[in-house]
Amino acid sequence: MDLAALYRTTALAIAGAKPVRSVIGRYGWRLGVGRFVAGEDIRSAVPVLLAIQASGRRVILDLLGEFVESESASRAVAEAVKESVAVARERGVEPYFSVKPTQLGLGVSAELALELADGVASAIGAAGGHLCLDMENVPYVSGTLDLYEELRRAGHHHVSTVLQSYLFRTPEDLDRLIGLAGAYPDVTTALRLVKGAYRETAEHALQDVAGVEEAYRALAYRALGAGLKLNVATHDEGLQRELLAYAQGAALSQDRYEVQMLYGVKPQLQERLSAAGLPVRVYVPFGSDWYGYFSRRLAERPANLAFVARGLFG
Amino acid sequence: MDLAALYRTTALAIAGAKPVRSVIGRYGWRLGVGRFVAGEDIRSAVPVLLAIQASGRRVILDLLGEFVESESASRAVAEAVKESVAVARERGVEPYFSVKPTQLGLGVSAELALELADGVASAIGAAGGHLCLDMENVPYVSGTLDLYEELRRAGHHHVSTVLQSYLFRTPEDLDRLIGLAGAYPDVTTALRLVKGAYRETAEHALQDVAGVEEAYRALAYRALGAGLKLNVATHDEGLQRELLAYAQGAALSQDRYEVQMLYGVKPQLQERLSAAGLPVRVYVPFGSDWYGYFSRRLAERPANLAFVARGLFG
Repeated sequence: MDLAALYRTTALAIAGAKPVRSVIGRYGWRLGVGRFVAGEDIRSAVPVLLAIQASGRRVILDLLGEFVESESASRAVAEAVKESVAVARERGVEPYFSVKPTQLGLGVSAELALELADGVASAIGAAGGHLCLDMENVPYVSGTLDLYEELRRAGHHHVSTVLQSYLFRTPEDLDRLIGLAGAYPDVTTALRLVKGAYRETAEHALQDVAGVEEAYRALAYRALGAGLKLNVATHDEGLQRELLAYAQGAALSQDRYEVQMLYGVKPQLQERLSAAGLPVRVYVPFGSDWYGYFSRRLAERPANLAFVARGLFG
Repeated sequence: MDLAALYRTTALAIAGAKPVRSVIGRYGWRLGVGRFVAGEDIRSAVPVLLAIQASGRRVILDLLGEFVESESASRAVAEAVKESVAVARERGVEPYFSVKPTQLGLGVSAELALELADGVASAIGAAGGHLCLDMENVPYVSGTLDLYEELRRAGHHHVSTVLQSYLFRTPEDLDRLIGLAGAYPDVTTALRLVKGAYRETAEHALQDVAGVEEAYRALAYRALGAGLKLNVATHDEGLQRELLAYAQGAALSQDRYEVQMLYGVKPQLQERLSAAGLPVRVYVPFGSDWYGYFSRRLAERPANLAFVARGLFG
């Protein structure tokens, strides 16, 4: 394990400890949760969302929540998303949402997930928005792609999904998406491409940074070549530069590609790209269940933890 | 000074010490000079040059030699280059040469340099080859550009030159080259773009790695936009990838760009690019005056020094 991985594991273990959870849970906003999370609900997130839009960037709304394991909890999430759609529409925020399929019941049953996803997709569609079905760890990948395909078959063409370059299966999953796109040649099929952030075993995923980057590159060019809209969702500046250079060289129109980054991560870079006239969309999480998301941001980079330490002791 | 710079300075200081010069000078070939230098003269370099050509890469021939300070020494270099042209032609090696203007007397007088460069350019032109006027440190930059312009005016359109992205003056020098290219719209004006490897002061050159890279990027896109042929002469894989991605996206024909790398530096990368169908040209030094060039290669990367240490003790 290299030093960065060791830091990450240690930070996640500390974040998982009960007393730490309790302190951060209590003083979180004072400690800087607000750097990465826009608010404890959609209404408190609106000012951040509007400010991002005013800066020329676009937004992805993500209602935080993990480990949704019952039907009732899933139905509650679906209602909360629909309510957020209404608030977004009313306040002038673009209703572009990212939702995890397990939040909509994929861990309960495929039927429940389809029912709820269809309802959410309809609400978002009626508001003129977009739904990105987020991708989770290995046990949910096939189910998510099935769900995505069902939604497209039901006519929800304002729905996209995500592939993770670190998984060995992803080239085949991309074949499937390209095939699906071919069935609907008159509408855009968008793909959010990420490297992958879950802990996956060597059976399922590449374990080396260089291999994951190389896989990303190969998938990205295949997706672009097949006419998909590519959402470049990585903070890897080298990959961003390369793919943006390709897009500029090929004079792709801006509805064919987009850079997607997380709220609070490399904000100057986001602004620089946007100021250069490039399409940038910022993934903005909000909601009361922010602890896991916040811990992962701290675990990613020692600089982020230092930021919190300053909040505690400074 | 960062660790890499400290290593570089120390390695160069050690290489400059007399006893070290004496040992390396004597046992150099056994110590691995041959990894970076193709031979002690053109004839001994021919097998290396042919092997590179057979691998699908192209070559740049560089007759090593520094600190040429007299007219007679300059005339001797010019003759040696012409002889190399004849040997290259006879043995099936592409007569694409790189020559430092001070080797042709630029340190003696501009008139001498013009006379000798004109003779060398004529010999190379008659062989159907190419001459790249190399670029040296700040005191010679204007003189080299003047010399280049005179050669173009004399009809030597198979001559190109080099710009260094770390110099503050380079954007203006690029304006000048673009203007010159505009005067000869029917022939290719090629530019070899490097980051720069001399020790220049903060008065003349950017001192930070990121700034030099950013300058490189800006110059490269301007040169491509102005229709120059861009010879991407850097081992920075990120820059290579980005500019190659742009070239692929723009479907530039392969006479509009080329990657140029040094013999013995990242050979697997050279072969990978070449195998991917990309135009790669390898800068191949030869000649008895290899000490300075070899020392700089060792100073560049600890891995290169380790390679020599294994030759000494292994």
